[in-house]
Amino acid sequence: MKRYFEEYELNTVQVSMGRTITETDIVLHAGQTGDFYPHHMDAEWSKTQVFGERVAYGTLVLIVSVGQLAREMNEVAFSYGYDKVRFIAPVFIGDTITSRAEIVGKREHPKRGNEYGMIDEQVSVTNQKGEVVLAFIHVYMVSRKQ
Amino acid sequence: MKRYFEEYELNTVQVSMGRTITETDIVLHAGQTGDFYPHHMDAEWSKTQVFGERVAYGTLVLIVSVGQLAREMNEVAFSYGYDKVRFIAPVFIGDTITSRAEIVGKREHPKRGNEYGMIDEQVSVTNQKGEVVLAFIHVYMVSRKQ
Amino acid sequence: MKRYFEEYELNTVQVSMGRTITETDIVLHAGQTGDFYPHHMDAEWSKTQVFGERVAYGTLVLIVSVGQLAREMNEVAFSYGYDKVRFIAPVFIGDTITSRAEIVGKREHPKRGNEYGMIDEQVSVTNQKGEVVLAFIHVYMVSRKQ
Amino acid sequence: MKRYFEEYELNTVQVSMGRTITETDIVLHAGQTGDFYPHHMDAEWSKTQVFGERVAYGTLVLIVSVGQLAREMNEVAFSYGYDKVRFIAPVFIGDTITSRAEIVGKREHPKRGNEYGMIDEQVSVTNQKGEVVLAFIHVYMVSRKQ
Amino acid sequence: MKRYFEEYELNTVQVSMGRTITETDIVLHAGQTGDFYPHHMDAEWSKTQVFGERVAYGTLVLIVSVGQLAREMNEVAFSYGYDKVRFIAPVFIGDTITSRAEIVGKREHPKRGNEYGMIDEQVSVTNQKGEVVLAFIHVYMVSRKQ
Amino acid sequence: MKRYFEEYELNTVQVSMGRTITETDIVLHAGQTGDFYPHHMDAEWSKTQVFGERVAYGTLVLIVSVGQLAREMNEVAFSYGYDKVRFIAPVFIGDTITSRAEIVGKREHPKRGNEYGMIDEQVSVTNQKGEVVLAFIHVYMVSRKQ
Repeated sequence: MKRYFEEYELNTVQVSMGRTITETDIVLHAGQTGDFYPHHMDAEWSKTQVFGERVAYGTLVLIVSVGQLAREMNEVAFSYGYDKVRFIAPVFIGDTITSRAEIVGKREHPKRGNEYGMIDEQVSVTNQKGEVVLAFIHVYMVSRKQ
Repeated sequence: MKRYFEEYELNTVQVSMGRTITETDIVLHAGQTGDFYPHHMDAEWSKTQVFGERVAYGTLVLIVSVGQLAREMNEVAFSYGYDKVRFIAPVFIGDTITSRAEIVGKREHPKRGNEYGMIDEQVSVTNQKGEVVLAFIHVYMVSRKQ
Repeated sequence: MKRYFEEYELNTVQVSMGRTITETDIVLHAGQTGDFYPHHMDAEWSKTQVFGERVAYGTLVLIVSVGQLAREMNEVAFSYGYDKVRFIAPVFIGDTITSRAEIVGKREHPKRGNEYGMIDEQVSVTNQKGEVVLAFIHVYMVSRKQ
Repeated sequence: MKRYFEEYELNTVQVSMGRTITETDIVLHAGQTGDFYPHHMDAEWSKTQVFGERVAYGTLVLIVSVGQLAREMNEVAFSYGYDKVRFIAPVFIGDTITSRAEIVGKREHPKRGNEYGMIDEQVSVTNQKGEVVLAFIHVYMVSRKQ
Repeated sequence: MKRYFEEYELNTVQVSMGRTITETDIVLHAGQTGDFYPHHMDAEWSKTQVFGERVAYGTLVLIVSVGQLAREMNEVAFSYGYDKVRFIAPVFIGDTITSRAEIVGKREHPKRGNEYGMIDEQVSVTNQKGEVVLAFIHVYMVSRKQ
Repeated sequence: MKRYFEEYELNTVQVSMGRTITETDIVLHAGQTGDFYPHHMDAEWSKTQVFGERVAYGTLVLIVSVGQLAREMNEVAFSYGYDKVRFIAPVFIGDTITSRAEIVGKREHPKRGNEYGMIDEQVSVTNQKGEVVLAFIHVYMVSRKQ
């Protein structure tokens, strides 16, 4: 699919399928990142902490959310970065998260405005109770129609 | 370890060990995120694109960087979020990345300033040629000494 | 999405994105199946065999193909089974496979014809040279419109 | 081991060890196949469906069964394909499956009958309650004694 | 870090963070080793055995312990081997293990005493009840200051 | 299978199939152990070291060897521990290892001699050049015939 900058419309919303965050995801995430902090890997220590149980890595929730929304590929869009990534509430083993993305900004590319535009997509991730656990802005650089 | 807000000093620098991004990391990242876009998973298609080969996921580089820097745990610091995450240059299979973190900001917590302060850590990730491939600000919320 | 039996049309074709079969996929497949036969796991022994190198598991190629085609979920279709699964040519590490599915049959469900119909989807998997490496029929049971 | 076509006997039975299908297997299978359908990955959605919980991928049960039976390698046998793969009953997280294989057919190779014969092995997979959850015919091509 | 043989002191103790051994770890360990014995992989069979449930692989507990203690790298120390590895008590899914290492020996290298010395580190691994589940001696070869 | 202490014979030899140690195995081993030392994970740093490339974890070679030899399960034998584990030569990515086990000792169980005997199995692991890379004694506790 090719969807050019001009074809993006403000307030367009995409909602992902749900995905349950499992103990397996946490163990695999430790393995990929090398972060074995006890908040995620030590059930006994976690009992003594404020949440009372292991919590998912913020980075895990972030990348699952990005992946949930990566459905149909746009060949002319590139991931430019993220802004205002905020870990709002903990995600526990067994929680199911869903991501909602809304186009909230269309901007000029600061230097290459003839070729590209910038798209700001506000993503919010909610758990099965409807609580927002993570929010961030995914910034894309998208080709203009020539 | 407990390191309170007052004990953080501006311009303190931490440099990680290096880590080579392998084809395995990419395959595992696809598996964890569910993003099987051909930029990362299709070597043939990638040959026809601008970089000429598969590139690592931006999210992979981000989480490996966060993990590289997660060495000694500070029990009174919490990951609050990230700002200005920017994918500056591609990371290819076989590239080795190193992360450098510098404390660049100490701020009041907007609402709970008596209990917590905010720490901004500027992270830059470089490859084996010394090129910066990713930059971001890791924001921590850290307890004040009472 | 809900797509009922009556809405399937013969000769409808779906083509997947490509995916490169990596050494990682083979190692992970050994780990999931418990099959550590040297055809897949012993590079030295494989040099002495007819193909001269390690080959991908037939089951790996099959499940990657099924996964490649599992894009938009049809809530009223169920995987009933496979027929005539044939391993036609070897897949080597580094080969890139693409799956093509065509609806080739619409049949009555043998016992519950009022509720369901049967869909036969002929899948052929090709490598980057265009050679067919695997063929099979994916049989679905799909709800009828009531 | 070398076991030639002439040495296969009808009705020979092999029974595998048992293996418990875990949540981990499902998460790893999603990662290998790229199929993140909610039947397997979303515990909340699954509660609203007919089975009331997540079910294992049919392809997971199939490949675990094939792997369970891959014990002693026959150097002169090749996996030719599968016939009549049928997903008969759901496998849930925590179910333990066992595979039983019986030689049910010895046939001429359609074109290369001087060199090879065909072996049909009927496999049935049962859970811990003795219910058959999967059945299929594994077809081998086996060298003849020269 | 470079810590030479002369700088090691007897009775120095290091204690690791804790880590919970999960079902995921067991499944991944099966996958890496190829050992699918029912003591670890078959929950039903395990119910009929002396421990009444699946137990972690001894090799899993060993390598997690070695990993737990691999914190700051000493560039002039090399892992020479292990002595008296003893599996003292079973580790079950959900148990949390902690490793304690104590320098108990400093010896001459048998042949290259001018260059290297030998360090014996006694490791004991305990579960959340304080029971020792594994003990072993990790032997290092460490450069002397020249 | 049940093979009692009395049925073990000195000098009985078992030789495993071969297995190639891949980059994937190393990455997965880092993930399971949490040891991300640059000897295994940093290709650039490794170029500057004595071996000139990344080496496999000693623990990886050990557990693959134990797994290679875990073929037919003896229901009355238990892994008691390992003695004299020695890392003799490095294993590099792409090396293929084979394990040979020989019964070298039959001893009384120190305390429960009426019930059990001890079996010492000398294992040596060789690479594709025939060089021994690892040696260890696997000690089993085996039931006596009553």
